[in-house]
Amino acid sequence: MALLVQKFGGTSVGSVERIEAVADRLCRSRNDGHDVVVVVSAMSGETNRLIALANDIMEEPTPREMDVLVSTGEQVTIALLSMALQKRGCEARSYTGSQVRILTDSAHTKARIQDIDERNMRGDLDKGRVVVVAGFQGVDEHGNITTLGRGGSDTTAVALAAALKADECQIYTDVDGVYTTDPRVVDAARRLDRITFEEMLEMASLGSKVLQIRAVEFAGKYNVPLRVLSSFKEGEGTLITFEDESTMEQPVVSGIAFNRDEAKLTISGVPDTPGIALRILKPVSDANIEVDMIVQNVGADNHTDFTFTVHRNDFRRTREILDKLASELGAREVAGDDRIAKVSIVGVGMRSHAGVATRMFEALSNEGINIRMISTSEIKISVVIDEKYLELAVRALHSAFELHTAESEAR
Amino acid sequence: MALLVQKFGGTSVGSVERIEAVADRLCRSRNDGHDVVVVVSAMSGETNRLIALANDIMEEPTPREMDVLVSTGEQVTIALLSMALQKRGCEARSYTGSQVRILTDSAHTKARIQDIDERNMRGDLDKGRVVVVAGFQGVDEHGNITTLGRGGSDTTAVALAAALKADECQIYTDVDGVYTTDPRVVDAARRLDRITFEEMLEMASLGSKVLQIRAVEFAGKYNVPLRVLSSFKEGEGTLITFEDESTMEQPVVSGIAFNRDEAKLTISGVPDTPGIALRILKPVSDANIEVDMIVQNVGADNHTDFTFTVHRNDFRRTREILDKLASELGAREVAGDDRIAKVSIVGVGMRSHAGVATRMFEALSNEGINIRMISTSEIKISVVIDEKYLELAVRALHSAFELHTAESEAR
Repeated sequence: MALLVQKFGGTSVGSVERIEAVADRLCRSRNDGHDVVVVVSAMSGETNRLIALANDIMEEPTPREMDVLVSTGEQVTIALLSMALQKRGCEARSYTGSQVRILTDSAHTKARIQDIDERNMRGDLDKGRVVVVAGFQGVDEHGNITTLGRGGSDTTAVALAAALKADECQIYTDVDGVYTTDPRVVDAARRLDRITFEEMLEMASLGSKVLQIRAVEFAGKYNVPLRVLSSFKEGEGTLITFEDESTMEQPVVSGIAFNRDEAKLTISGVPDTPGIALRILKPVSDANIEVDMIVQNVGADNHTDFTFTVHRNDFRRTREILDKLASELGAREVAGDDRIAKVSIVGVGMRSHAGVATRMFEALSNEGINIRMISTSEIKISVVIDEKYLELAVRALHSAFELHTAESEAR
Repeated sequence: MALLVQKFGGTSVGSVERIEAVADRLCRSRNDGHDVVVVVSAMSGETNRLIALANDIMEEPTPREMDVLVSTGEQVTIALLSMALQKRGCEARSYTGSQVRILTDSAHTKARIQDIDERNMRGDLDKGRVVVVAGFQGVDEHGNITTLGRGGSDTTAVALAAALKADECQIYTDVDGVYTTDPRVVDAARRLDRITFEEMLEMASLGSKVLQIRAVEFAGKYNVPLRVLSSFKEGEGTLITFEDESTMEQPVVSGIAFNRDEAKLTISGVPDTPGIALRILKPVSDANIEVDMIVQNVGADNHTDFTFTVHRNDFRRTREILDKLASELGAREVAGDDRIAKVSIVGVGMRSHAGVATRMFEALSNEGINIRMISTSEIKISVVIDEKYLELAVRALHSAFELHTAESEAR
């Protein structure tokens, strides 16, 4: 008998029928003898409907009132799910974020959880009830309703699991686990039984949007075992583990992540003086443009080339900033390319294995794919290539690192 | 400069456009120098949409979860209205029932207000903000969300006005005041500038459903001046006053109320013994059927006839109960008629004027209308007549008591 926190997203509770299916699943968990706390999102479409109402009134609605508005979405779901459980003879009780008391700071629309009072929930669990909690929302010290921002329901689930010292936090979603790469690109993509927190972080930030980064970080910080499962089919999903447990038997590379949403800019022939990176990047960051990869080459004649990537939507704005900057800095040229893609191999195993980069570059070279940028971290190697080669690159790497077989421990 | 509590119902906030119109009106009140607390209902249709979702799951949803569900309706409105006010440069802050702290008992779906904490609202008023409160909802001592039942927003408004000692509680609705009778029946029906609380109670319970009875009782109990106005056109509306102020200049009759929803039942030839009324009415009330008018005639041979009215929907059930009872009591006959209507004249003035009943009966007799039942109270005389004469009766009485002229003080 375990204490489980189970989270169901908007698609999983998108209609009365789906809510009933979630109730069936929860009743099974209860009947198996588990204590269950369930966290739900708003029914799919509902949050967008509410935001559209607000935008009919104001382009930038007041954050405090926005939170009052959109938090109703999850409140509807907790009531309906509790009813569906009660109909099945499964005692249940709903909680808004405020009723649990999920205390947050006052940063409306992007609040951070500060404390969770688990006593009310514990009382209901002791009475054999399923505790149904509205995800994504909390309350600040003044009693104002706050929200954690999009995807915040994952964070709510992990935070509740941490507060209740749950045995597992199970995130039900529309995929049945974390894959070695996107199955739409590589047929042989395989569901991973387990993946480390660090790998998951790299995979998430690289575009494998199964879980919110914040939730993963939170789970890592509080040692909450996290599992990703499908709402729609049975299966064990993927368990996200603490690295130390499993390093020994870790494959070199766990997955291939990729991202088509980036664009690359180069400002070349700038003076190679201390502080030049700051002078280039500060106006970009001042314009609220997020920079992803950064590469600076050692240049000749005390001059250097500076290349970085931004979200494709920010390409034109960034280019305008650089064009202005180029004359100030006496740069030779500003060049840009928004037809690029980023491909990354991720794996904690590569720490203890030499030659991973070589193997990666070899695989790409064999396919005649030119590498335009390289960036590495301890557990990840990312390359930027022409967008048209993306699928080819992902398939070549998936095969090179033998990700189609569960036994690919080698190298 | 006054402190006003203004309440807008579901139709008045039924779309973003209407919410904007309400915001315009509130800004005018602020610009006139008034402090304003506004109470709003759910956008029209929203409560029914939520109830339908619940009914898709359960025929009789748990009351606690029903309250969690439907209370989201008003929460959406307070957020949108606050945004619309802020867009107009009018500072505003929304409050759910729980955030105000409108403390109620725990009778979910029909809770009663026990206490209101006015401190938070007062703080915002002092800062020049419009305080936007969700009607119809509160919170019990355990932090559970409660609702006051349909129409509870009027009660919320009056209760807030009482707690804040507001100068006036203004109920905006889709009619522009209280009329001498239904203008759809009598062209000459006239808006009353003022009406007493007692008259309003009689008018409301008799079917002039401008205000919820509970709200009127509440206003009377706490001496809250209440005004009914139109959301859609300008005007002074009708002020509901304390009787004592104005008895002197009160017309004899203030209005004609009527009701088509009743049915009449007679059990005749029952023994005229003490407790007979109880023996007849108890099984009816045990079946949760509400009885309106009751008339018992003195009979011959220690037997009597007993007649009462119920809602037309309860006619068949009541008849079944009486049929069963008739044999137990040895009654002669059970008769019923569901093609009746009730017409009442209402006015505190009739207390100090003799002959009002005579005048009423004369007016009906002149039109050849037969009176089937009569019941009187201090400020009201009700008669039951055949339904087909209803419009004729109302017009005759409206004219007989000269209600078309504002100066009809006279007999």
